[in-house]
Amino acid sequence: MSERRQPVLGILGGGQLARMLALAAAPLGGKTLVVDSSADACAGQVAPLVVADWTDYAALEAFAAQVDVVTFDFENVPAETAHWLAERVAVYPAPQALAVAQDRLAEKTLFRECGLPTPAFMTVDTREQLDQALATVGVPAILKTRRLGYDGKGQFRLTRQADADAAWAALGAQASKHGLILEAFVPFERELSVIAVRGRDGEFRIWPLTRNWHVDGVLSMSLAPAPDIEQLQRRASELARTLAERLDYVGVFALELFVKDGELLGNEMAPRVHNSGHWTIEGAYTSQFENHVRAVLGLPLGDTGARGLSAMLNWIGELPEPTAVLKTSDAHWHDYGKQARPGRKVGHATVCAADAVALAERLDALAAALTRQAQVQPTLDVLHS
Amino acid sequence: MSERRQPVLGILGGGQLARMLALAAAPLGGKTLVVDSSADACAGQVAPLVVADWTDYAALEAFAAQVDVVTFDFENVPAETAHWLAERVAVYPAPQALAVAQDRLAEKTLFRECGLPTPAFMTVDTREQLDQALATVGVPAILKTRRLGYDGKGQFRLTRQADADAAWAALGAQASKHGLILEAFVPFERELSVIAVRGRDGEFRIWPLTRNWHVDGVLSMSLAPAPDIEQLQRRASELARTLAERLDYVGVFALELFVKDGELLGNEMAPRVHNSGHWTIEGAYTSQFENHVRAVLGLPLGDTGARGLSAMLNWIGELPEPTAVLKTSDAHWHDYGKQARPGRKVGHATVCAADAVALAERLDALAAALTRQAQVQPTLDVLHS
Repeated sequence: MSERRQPVLGILGGGQLARMLALAAAPLGGKTLVVDSSADACAGQVAPLVVADWTDYAALEAFAAQVDVVTFDFENVPAETAHWLAERVAVYPAPQALAVAQDRLAEKTLFRECGLPTPAFMTVDTREQLDQALATVGVPAILKTRRLGYDGKGQFRLTRQADADAAWAALGAQASKHGLILEAFVPFERELSVIAVRGRDGEFRIWPLTRNWHVDGVLSMSLAPAPDIEQLQRRASELARTLAERLDYVGVFALELFVKDGELLGNEMAPRVHNSGHWTIEGAYTSQFENHVRAVLGLPLGDTGARGLSAMLNWIGELPEPTAVLKTSDAHWHDYGKQARPGRKVGHATVCAADAVALAERLDALAAALTRQAQVQPTLDVLHS
Repeated sequence: MSERRQPVLGILGGGQLARMLALAAAPLGGKTLVVDSSADACAGQVAPLVVADWTDYAALEAFAAQVDVVTFDFENVPAETAHWLAERVAVYPAPQALAVAQDRLAEKTLFRECGLPTPAFMTVDTREQLDQALATVGVPAILKTRRLGYDGKGQFRLTRQADADAAWAALGAQASKHGLILEAFVPFERELSVIAVRGRDGEFRIWPLTRNWHVDGVLSMSLAPAPDIEQLQRRASELARTLAERLDYVGVFALELFVKDGELLGNEMAPRVHNSGHWTIEGAYTSQFENHVRAVLGLPLGDTGARGLSAMLNWIGELPEPTAVLKTSDAHWHDYGKQARPGRKVGHATVCAADAVALAERLDALAAALTRQAQVQPTLDVLHS
């Protein structure tokens, strides 16, 4: 028997997504090597970590020499770094796909080209253009940086024309560097996300749509499969596939969608595994993390069907006491191994059940034990309806 | 918010059990540190590894200072090492519990004290005693080393009185060092195992009984929950609890049992997570690995119920081509990251389904794709019956 060589997956960024990717790679026989600028990066607890920033080309050269494939925990890796790596080693998703998702203008333009409508938007480079954009887009609206925003960061909500000064004070300084975009705020009925995956050979799969609730721009809870989505599931699948093929995308990606008057509107795309897909670890036959690893390593994709119904609760800032979750049947605790810090995603829990009644019971009991009724209530309302 | 300190789990031995324990510890927020004499130990791919042997007390001292709890991947850690560590750090299971499981005589004596019958046995220290034992126990019988045996190693099967010379030639040299024991070979109807867990506070849980098939003393396949076990499940649970309480056991352990004339007979105890419990990773609400980590860290135990029906196939010597498994719905691939070597456990796959018909279909198709019909047939026979 010849010496076997295990594939080595390189991950740019060492947060919880890299951590969960590394945990999913291990049973597939994959080794992981992570790059992060912080020696504290939580993925470093489960995989070797190279401490380097995105312009430390000596470190990146050594990293590239040790890995078979490079992928991302973090979509805002500079395009130059991604291109530089792609000249040395296979990078999935490819830098050009990443670039589209990094720029809200390119992203929304692509959505429209693929037949996915979006809220009205206009680019804003100057204070005067903000007034023009407000006149066209109307209020309420959200001023956002075109690049480098995530989890509600780099966003300012305007409810009247007179908020323009405050919005410009908050984000105007970033207009020249990252660009700004004004988007109409859509009074949506529901927030959904698509988690989809495309293999190196073009094989395409999508998990059942997930319903999401955000608080202050940050995901608070998810429910999957989202109830009442029969029609939307097929449409979302077609859109996601068209988009993935246009980008020749490889790996998992997420599309955040609004539902307005029963129709889908495109909000944004995340070119990576996504918080709203964490429920797939226990709630689907194959998790988003495992399928991303399979895709980038060129392995066949796994079944993306749901086992039952799953609800995911994000832990923001600090972890609650875990006992109640640990004692709940088919509830699963995920501590990312990070220090507590206001606004930081430090963990999540997923509660699974065979049906809505059982899931509502478990969530209800958990919310009471954790005094987290406010977080859980919107999901409970849907499960009870 | 104060700096949090994550618990550190120390594991003695760095094989696949340590690897899967480390993967289960991470979502619970646990860090892992592994000790193994080999720098190649496969758990070292997912957790930091200290390369040291069991008598390197300088290295073990440093190891003990870095961990909160010590547990075992490997039950044959020398008793002196376990005791020495237990004076410095919490060790679960405690060395005295480990000692019982390390000695087939103590183990079988305990089984009988707890009300679990065993096959007839006699200790053998000399060639003459082997003849006496054969006269008492009869044939067929198995001569085994009292200590340090696993996976059929250190065993010799005798089918007639005249095999005594060959048996002594094979194992006699170990009589003075490890002791020998002659056990009656029981023409059993079924092999079952209990996987059970006991917490630091005495909380006790047992997974559904697993039916096992061995080839050449090594586990080949498992099916769980074992069919037709209603009566036996309760009896096995009582026995496992009695045994765990007698030993003040903390963590997961396995009892290998025979069924003869519808009654349970005790074969052996493994004081650790066990190959016949690997199906629990996907097939149960909480895996044996997660519950072992929870137990030794003093966390509440998780639900040990089965999601559906699961079959586990061991990969011995080398891995088959993974494609067929990766393409099967609810089938799960586990590559331990080890080099191929004859007789070595290098991975496993677990196939899950909602019922026996669906599981049989999946296994049948997989066996054909892998040309592993012989491995799968005994399980298929049970599923079809």
